[in-house]
Amino acid sequence: MNKIFTSAEVAHHNKENSCWVVLYGKVYDVTHFLSSHPGGAQAILRVSGRDATDDFDPIHPPETMDSIQSARIGSLSLDEKSPCATQTKDTSDEIDVSTLLNLDEIEKAATNVISKRAWAYYYSAADDKITKDFNTQVYRSLLLRPRVFVDCRKCDVETELLGWKVGLPIYVSPTAMARLGHPRGEAGIAEACGALGALQIIANNSSLSPEQVVAKALPTQVFGWQLYVQLDRRASEAMLARVNRLDEIKFVILTLDAPVSGKREDDERINVKSHPAGSVSAQLFAGTDPSLTWNETLEWLSRHTKKPIIFKGLQTHEDVAIAARYTPLVQAVILSNHGGRSLDTAPPAVHTLLEVRKFCPHVFKKMEVWVDGGIRRGTDVVKALCLGAKAVGIGRPALWGLGAGGVKGVERTLQILLDETKTCMRLLGATTVHDLGPHYVTDALFPFPYTY
Amino acid sequence: MNKIFTSAEVAHHNKENSCWVVLYGKVYDVTHFLSSHPGGAQAILRVSGRDATDDFDPIHPPETMDSIQSARIGSLSLDEKSPCATQTKDTSDEIDVSTLLNLDEIEKAATNVISKRAWAYYYSAADDKITKDFNTQVYRSLLLRPRVFVDCRKCDVETELLGWKVGLPIYVSPTAMARLGHPRGEAGIAEACGALGALQIIANNSSLSPEQVVAKALPTQVFGWQLYVQLDRRASEAMLARVNRLDEIKFVILTLDAPVSGKREDDERINVKSHPAGSVSAQLFAGTDPSLTWNETLEWLSRHTKKPIIFKGLQTHEDVAIAARYTPLVQAVILSNHGGRSLDTAPPAVHTLLEVRKFCPHVFKKMEVWVDGGIRRGTDVVKALCLGAKAVGIGRPALWGLGAGGVKGVERTLQILLDETKTCMRLLGATTVHDLGPHYVTDALFPFPYTY
Amino acid sequence: MNKIFTSAEVAHHNKENSCWVVLYGKVYDVTHFLSSHPGGAQAILRVSGRDATDDFDPIHPPETMDSIQSARIGSLSLDEKSPCATQTKDTSDEIDVSTLLNLDEIEKAATNVISKRAWAYYYSAADDKITKDFNTQVYRSLLLRPRVFVDCRKCDVETELLGWKVGLPIYVSPTAMARLGHPRGEAGIAEACGALGALQIIANNSSLSPEQVVAKALPTQVFGWQLYVQLDRRASEAMLARVNRLDEIKFVILTLDAPVSGKREDDERINVKSHPAGSVSAQLFAGTDPSLTWNETLEWLSRHTKKPIIFKGLQTHEDVAIAARYTPLVQAVILSNHGGRSLDTAPPAVHTLLEVRKFCPHVFKKMEVWVDGGIRRGTDVVKALCLGAKAVGIGRPALWGLGAGGVKGVERTLQILLDETKTCMRLLGATTVHDLGPHYVTDALFPFPYTY
Amino acid sequence: MNKIFTSAEVAHHNKENSCWVVLYGKVYDVTHFLSSHPGGAQAILRVSGRDATDDFDPIHPPETMDSIQSARIGSLSLDEKSPCATQTKDTSDEIDVSTLLNLDEIEKAATNVISKRAWAYYYSAADDKITKDFNTQVYRSLLLRPRVFVDCRKCDVETELLGWKVGLPIYVSPTAMARLGHPRGEAGIAEACGALGALQIIANNSSLSPEQVVAKALPTQVFGWQLYVQLDRRASEAMLARVNRLDEIKFVILTLDAPVSGKREDDERINVKSHPAGSVSAQLFAGTDPSLTWNETLEWLSRHTKKPIIFKGLQTHEDVAIAARYTPLVQAVILSNHGGRSLDTAPPAVHTLLEVRKFCPHVFKKMEVWVDGGIRRGTDVVKALCLGAKAVGIGRPALWGLGAGGVKGVERTLQILLDETKTCMRLLGATTVHDLGPHYVTDALFPFPYTY
Repeated sequence: MNKIFTSAEVAHHNKENSCWVVLYGKVYDVTHFLSSHPGGAQAILRVSGRDATDDFDPIHPPETMDSIQSARIGSLSLDEKSPCATQTKDTSDEIDVSTLLNLDEIEKAATNVISKRAWAYYYSAADDKITKDFNTQVYRSLLLRPRVFVDCRKCDVETELLGWKVGLPIYVSPTAMARLGHPRGEAGIAEACGALGALQIIANNSSLSPEQVVAKALPTQVFGWQLYVQLDRRASEAMLARVNRLDEIKFVILTLDAPVSGKREDDERINVKSHPAGSVSAQLFAGTDPSLTWNETLEWLSRHTKKPIIFKGLQTHEDVAIAARYTPLVQAVILSNHGGRSLDTAPPAVHTLLEVRKFCPHVFKKMEVWVDGGIRRGTDVVKALCLGAKAVGIGRPALWGLGAGGVKGVERTLQILLDETKTCMRLLGATTVHDLGPHYVTDALFPFPYTY
Repeated sequence: MNKIFTSAEVAHHNKENSCWVVLYGKVYDVTHFLSSHPGGAQAILRVSGRDATDDFDPIHPPETMDSIQSARIGSLSLDEKSPCATQTKDTSDEIDVSTLLNLDEIEKAATNVISKRAWAYYYSAADDKITKDFNTQVYRSLLLRPRVFVDCRKCDVETELLGWKVGLPIYVSPTAMARLGHPRGEAGIAEACGALGALQIIANNSSLSPEQVVAKALPTQVFGWQLYVQLDRRASEAMLARVNRLDEIKFVILTLDAPVSGKREDDERINVKSHPAGSVSAQLFAGTDPSLTWNETLEWLSRHTKKPIIFKGLQTHEDVAIAARYTPLVQAVILSNHGGRSLDTAPPAVHTLLEVRKFCPHVFKKMEVWVDGGIRRGTDVVKALCLGAKAVGIGRPALWGLGAGGVKGVERTLQILLDETKTCMRLLGATTVHDLGPHYVTDALFPFPYTY
Repeated sequence: MNKIFTSAEVAHHNKENSCWVVLYGKVYDVTHFLSSHPGGAQAILRVSGRDATDDFDPIHPPETMDSIQSARIGSLSLDEKSPCATQTKDTSDEIDVSTLLNLDEIEKAATNVISKRAWAYYYSAADDKITKDFNTQVYRSLLLRPRVFVDCRKCDVETELLGWKVGLPIYVSPTAMARLGHPRGEAGIAEACGALGALQIIANNSSLSPEQVVAKALPTQVFGWQLYVQLDRRASEAMLARVNRLDEIKFVILTLDAPVSGKREDDERINVKSHPAGSVSAQLFAGTDPSLTWNETLEWLSRHTKKPIIFKGLQTHEDVAIAARYTPLVQAVILSNHGGRSLDTAPPAVHTLLEVRKFCPHVFKKMEVWVDGGIRRGTDVVKALCLGAKAVGIGRPALWGLGAGGVKGVERTLQILLDETKTCMRLLGATTVHDLGPHYVTDALFPFPYTY
Repeated sequence: MNKIFTSAEVAHHNKENSCWVVLYGKVYDVTHFLSSHPGGAQAILRVSGRDATDDFDPIHPPETMDSIQSARIGSLSLDEKSPCATQTKDTSDEIDVSTLLNLDEIEKAATNVISKRAWAYYYSAADDKITKDFNTQVYRSLLLRPRVFVDCRKCDVETELLGWKVGLPIYVSPTAMARLGHPRGEAGIAEACGALGALQIIANNSSLSPEQVVAKALPTQVFGWQLYVQLDRRASEAMLARVNRLDEIKFVILTLDAPVSGKREDDERINVKSHPAGSVSAQLFAGTDPSLTWNETLEWLSRHTKKPIIFKGLQTHEDVAIAARYTPLVQAVILSNHGGRSLDTAPPAVHTLLEVRKFCPHVFKKMEVWVDGGIRRGTDVVKALCLGAKAVGIGRPALWGLGAGGVKGVERTLQILLDETKTCMRLLGATTVHDLGPHYVTDALFPFPYTY
């Protein structure tokens, strides 16, 4: 079992009929795993016959190692082990995040220090990034209507999400692969969320297991867990069973806006050169089930968890109205276009919010409506809340924060957004998030308040 | 008959009263052809007195040589023959088209390798290229409305065009002079279309004869043939007679948006320097009949072909409504502004489509409506189909694909567009092209679905 | 009377109490002219005590010399006469205007060869040049609606302006100071207009006298003369008397949009450096009467000329409607914002045209409506005609043409615009300018035809 | 009391428990002032233990020295006194302001010569400066409608503000810290305002005392004084008592759009580097009372001054309508978003003006409505007046003028704007500011006059 192999020996086993990889200094014969790998056989084959630790580590939770111990056939010759490069470099000491004044500066700082591959995965969006850009621009086309003579000594941004108290109406959206950008990964984001009282949604494709992410959570801390239903339903059921046991996780968020992967060219471009078999996105989506339907999926899901369910990725008033019929099983929807990573030229969440206000406003009374996508300023947060959102999510900004400064970087990101939100509310004349409403919003082209 | 001439001797014959050219090593006295040359006498005179093969070859089908054999008067001295530069350079080995991720990258790659003259002819559009640019931009101002919980395992893009089954709702528009960009020319496009099941419309000014283009077609392959009615009607009648004999050609497409040539300055600019007598466009249009009228033309055309007729280049709802009165003789219209090459500031086909939806929606029940112009993404294809188009055409993208990589380049172009179309439909929640409708489309300024 | 002076002697006389200038080698004591100079005393003082020929020549018609002969006091010492630099350089041989494809290229070419001072005077417009730019951009936001199946062999652009036949519906607007750009000045423009059959309006501040401009006119050639009413009414009356005697001049155009000069910073900037006392514009406007009113002015003017009167510079439907009450004395109005040189953010003529269409369409039946400003393409010409203009004027383009290539440059400018207009009409399916109407026009934002 | 200290001795006292500073060569123990410093203890601590004169001088009125004389403990050793760098450099000789043609050029000139810190404080605005930029852009999207045949020899821009005659409808808005940009500070602005007859509003945070600012005022000169109500109400009451004694000050302007400071990143960025404890803005706002409400504040204020009260910073028609109920105590409102320095994406004053016109036009009859923000051209002034403003304020332009050329620079700024305003009115056909109305305004997108 602990036979010693040379690199040359390992190198011969790079085919479908005999496929070896070196992970953390050990040699594994993974030939039999090829057919069941969620990311597809090609993803393994292209790193076979050599040390795959750098490719494997940042995108797999550690427990994946457990499932392949039976395949271990020996160790690599000590003389040949590569220097321990298996950790993403921690760059958080290089940057004093307190000097970064806004989320754009944090993104720039992170871009400078994280790997090109991490940047490409985080930055990428579908096709021409029209939706990604519009997500942010649409907030700039909305104007705020500040009222005067309001006592703004107090500014209360605390709120409750499905009954759970949070310190601010801003949460961290589920984003995969946090360890690509920083070794602390999703656990680092969790620590920062704890410090500010923010909800965090753990991604289905988190690079740490949910248990690891919540391990050091504060007692008051609130988590959600994102589900991509897998083709192998048993795998999803097993994950749900684990999630059900974690009290820190209060909701299950079912992602619906990405039955297949969007075309993320920045990500593909990086991979075309260095990883010829496919992009990170392609691997992540290889095992996702594209066949979900309303009744079947919800029936199945409600059998496997008793936690409240949230639908993420609704983009039309029609679907929001349908979702509202499924209360109380479904208690919230997240209007989202997946950060522009799914369908390019999909509408920004703000447009969907306006549709809902116009065509099915009763929804706001039946369930909570959250939004994400494009939030970069406190004014963006406030506008979304004014138009009916109960909370707003940030995805990339948390990853840029993590990349730029680890836990402190994520804290800085959340703190900036929180401070800006409070400043905005004070200047607007709103003392609690519950005061916010559409009368505070107008737009740049038609200078009158939204009345629907 | 096989007298040997030196270059110096030939050089004296560059006037109207004695005009010689060297073609493929032979010397021709074409003085008597000057008056009947469809591209005008000047086009010949400016290459007279020298080897004109490079100018002649890529823009004439080979049969043109047959018609001038009687003018052959000898051969050029072997010592002086130019190195065999008569073929457009095949650059398809230089570029690995599989690394090109989208149609813009293919255009850039082609731009780098094809001749400046080919680039200028393909790239050029009328005046300030406002319509050319708007053709593409208008699609970016339309947003899509993705539905969730739709089983998207299957995605069926097959459709029928006038009853003929095609593999995808994307066809290749008629574009002249494909051999300027690649020696395989229109036949190369045909091979790629065969591989994907795409309809190809052969241009009136194709640089290969229709017989050559369809020569190696697959049994299932579908072609159309584009007609520019010539001043010399007998020439058009002769061509129609040939086309009628080709079973692979299923329709005759009559181009109506270019009774005269638009002002294509990139093309003119190139020619002002290297070909002082006129642009490629000017030559091509020299013989076109600008006097067509509804009844006369259709009566004449229906006498010379029994194939279904398609009108191409309609740009107003008024003309579309008139065309619909000519069913079943006319079975489809193509909304087109000639890729912005004809009248600058003409409306994009999408606007015409919206006009038709509003003012004469009954047309959609009487005939098929196809559109072209500006399509660069699968989302563009889907938007056009949603708004009522039965199929969408691509012109320049096929030429850029051909220039960048020959047959493989065209295949790559079509495959990218097909993949993007399918991804878009899946993310939109539409499983067949017949599901697509206006409820999937809204626009960026007014965030509500199109209801007319 | 022909005393010889040295430069040093002349140099002492540069004050208000003794002011000498050298013109064409002669010395003049112009002290007594200071108070009556239309351009103000400062304009003379700043060139006093030296050779002022270069400053004087290009902006004064030759007859100005007559009026100061009494002030001649001698000649400059022959040894000191400057080399004969009194003529604006003729650069028309440097540029082959036939290689310039559009009006923008002609402007660029002229910019390269004319003096900085001429460029600044021609190029300048009010304030931030918002109106100047919008004049052109507004045409780009209008789309054309081409009809098919129209026999376009014939394309008749001839028209009649107030009953006078012209070869094309494009005229040359009155622009001052043509000799700044080319020694042929307004007479060069006249020669080019003759060649194409275009109407020319001679500016009040023409750098040649009206008699000189029309001297070599063809029998069929049509001119107008522009009047800025002077504070010194007798001066205007004298000019009208001369104009009345010129049969070539068919109308008198009264400019109304510039009672005072707009703030033309490019022009001022040049002059701040090289001519500290004021801009060319400031000099030209120094004598203009800002007190005109409807009844008084028209009564006065009708006493001094029997030629038809045209009001130029109307920018609101209200004023157009008022003007229409003065028919038949006033037979046409020109919608114009003075090329953006007067009031910045004034509306483009196209907007005024739309106002008139909406609020007082009866005007079109009572009088002719002409427009100018921003025309750079044949499509612009056609759009203006479609919306109701009887003719369109070009100002700067004629000057750029003159600067770039003298008579040939102006001919090239007119020919390009004429060719583009014909191409546009053919592609639109209109065979005469009388066929043009609003149904051919729509706009880029709202894709439906103008119906009012 | 006049003990001599060395720098080294002073340097030890830089903590909260012993805090010394050197000011104008004297040593002060300000330990006991830390807790009551309006700008916060940190602002002192970070300059403690050293010569703080350069930091102190330009942002405190001289009387601040009086209040700390009791803390004086001695003098700095003469050998060590820094060269007298306590004055902001006077750069007004370096620039010939008469060569600057518009307000943008004046800003550029000032940017080149004033300190980076002054630039950052003046230039900065909230967040992404969207409102700051839009303030200016919104005027460019409004078009003017010039009338013809109006006698414009006279152009009367004099007006009355709350019954006080002023020479022009343009006033200087309250802007803090004028001595950062020029040693003459607010007194320099006062001198320039006197020369042109312009109203000046003295900022609460003026770097000179109100007595100093008005000291050399002309008899006809009109001032207002801006109040930020302080947490320490007695401080505000004391200031009001002083202001009440100054007859030159006619009104008290209560600022309402900045209960807390906006996020001015340019200002913060400078300070992050050179002044780690906070931005200029943060210091200024540290003592401001964010708890004001309509009745309480007005009741308090009316007890402490009998001068007319003006509310500044209203941004909604709702608040304007409420304010109108408080007449005659409140006699005017200023529509303002604080130059974009408060809440980013707040609406421009022009939008609020349009709201008021639509929803509560009776307000214009009950009180005066002034506006500020973004005015850079005379056409902007005229547009605001046309839409209902009685006067328009300029803030930054006065500071740029002061920085670029001291008193002459401010005069030049006002003169340019005045000249442009007159030119605009003449070209528009309005002879007095009372003639101006909404019929002179339209916009660039919808070419019809504003009728509401």
